[in-house]
Amino acid sequence: MSKKIPFQSLCCPTIILVRPQLAENVGMVARAMMNCMLSDLRLVCPRENHLSEKAISASSGAQSILEHAVVYSSLTEALSDIHFTLATTARPREMTKPVYHPTKAVTLLNDNINQQLKTALLFGAERTGLENEEIVMADGIVEIPLNPQHCSLNLSQAVLLMGYEWFKQTHDHDNTHLEMGGAKPATKQELSALFNHLETELEKRGYFRFPDKRERMQRNLRNIFTRSGLTEAEIKTLHGVITDLIRPLS
Amino acid sequence: MSKKIPFQSLCCPTIILVRPQLAENVGMVARAMMNCMLSDLRLVCPRENHLSEKAISASSGAQSILEHAVVYSSLTEALSDIHFTLATTARPREMTKPVYHPTKAVTLLNDNINQQLKTALLFGAERTGLENEEIVMADGIVEIPLNPQHCSLNLSQAVLLMGYEWFKQTHDHDNTHLEMGGAKPATKQELSALFNHLETELEKRGYFRFPDKRERMQRNLRNIFTRSGLTEAEIKTLHGVITDLIRPLS
Repeated sequence: MSKKIPFQSLCCPTIILVRPQLAENVGMVARAMMNCMLSDLRLVCPRENHLSEKAISASSGAQSILEHAVVYSSLTEALSDIHFTLATTARPREMTKPVYHPTKAVTLLNDNINQQLKTALLFGAERTGLENEEIVMADGIVEIPLNPQHCSLNLSQAVLLMGYEWFKQTHDHDNTHLEMGGAKPATKQELSALFNHLETELEKRGYFRFPDKRERMQRNLRNIFTRSGLTEAEIKTLHGVITDLIRPLS
Repeated sequence: MSKKIPFQSLCCPTIILVRPQLAENVGMVARAMMNCMLSDLRLVCPRENHLSEKAISASSGAQSILEHAVVYSSLTEALSDIHFTLATTARPREMTKPVYHPTKAVTLLNDNINQQLKTALLFGAERTGLENEEIVMADGIVEIPLNPQHCSLNLSQAVLLMGYEWFKQTHDHDNTHLEMGGAKPATKQELSALFNHLETELEKRGYFRFPDKRERMQRNLRNIFTRSGLTEAEIKTLHGVITDLIRPLS
């Protein structure tokens, strides 16, 4: 199930989980990382085995990230080769530290990455989060904007949101488009031919009975079909619909 | 555990889960919705009871959303009072339909909401997603940008990412700031006094032994402390550090 991914920890922020409790959660973090093209995972004092069956099953195909994960016995050790690190927290702490919005945080991470520096994002244990002594080691704090009355996320969801923000700024472009499913958009000539067909048949049946309203009725009608961005095939379908509609019932 | 939230389905997009399989996943969707201040949940043909103990436990405090959720026997019925709806899909479909980036999708949803129209986001079953006949009913498709080689998300994660995008555009502002933990930033005068203290003591000990380098050494040193945005209390701490450092060992 595991897919090949490049392990270029210089190209993307390292994810450091501090004292993760459940192997299943570590597996789900690996899955979220794979979703966002993050590959470098470090674990500080994990309670359970991150290569257990439970962890691998929860990673749904991101086993390679678990296999390459490195276990450390302290955060200091896990951070030793890192140049710039941000800690994720849900609640404000009693310390002087810059707090960044995720968008800004990702910009800072990428600024460092672009200078060939190693970066990391820190996530605390499931229930307790990061200790103040751990946050002190970070260059700043990231606060994920959520409902202030209900902002607790599970570990993999916090990693997913930060990974998603990173992916969006790094690999994404606005993908808004008209999906054609292989179809070709109709030409304006084809569209005009459809209007002619429709209006001719309507005319015969007295649809445009009020001459002063004709122009407006025609425009409204044409607008409906112009707006819907018809394909060649759909134009044919509509010709067929008209042909059938005008057929007298036998 | 359940918190009071406003049920104003006109103010936020309705989340419609089509054929959700596991009650636990519906619970986790409720939790993600609560995280993002979404409140209106509809279920089309859920396989399990969304008010089961499993569902409520998975919702971690978002029980009120489950309690207010409405069950429908068809998507047509669930959509009957909705004006504008977008379907989430992971893979392209063979149909002509506008595809939106989540950011653009949220703008469209809010444009409709601002006109007092009811909006919804559709999510398919856990493994199979939405059927083509279901997607046809939507005004457009949202594609969440993720690693194209590994883009499968679980149901609650898909809801979380869309909810997060909605929350960011609707309730969020860039929260980047320097967290002071109640402390007051130092004045420039306090900072100058610290530099004087430090440089005077360094001078006495021959630190500035090369006159032509003095200016630069001083600038570098001052820059370290200027950059760190010291508080009043930290300035006092540093005065103490200097005072103690220069104390001869007895």
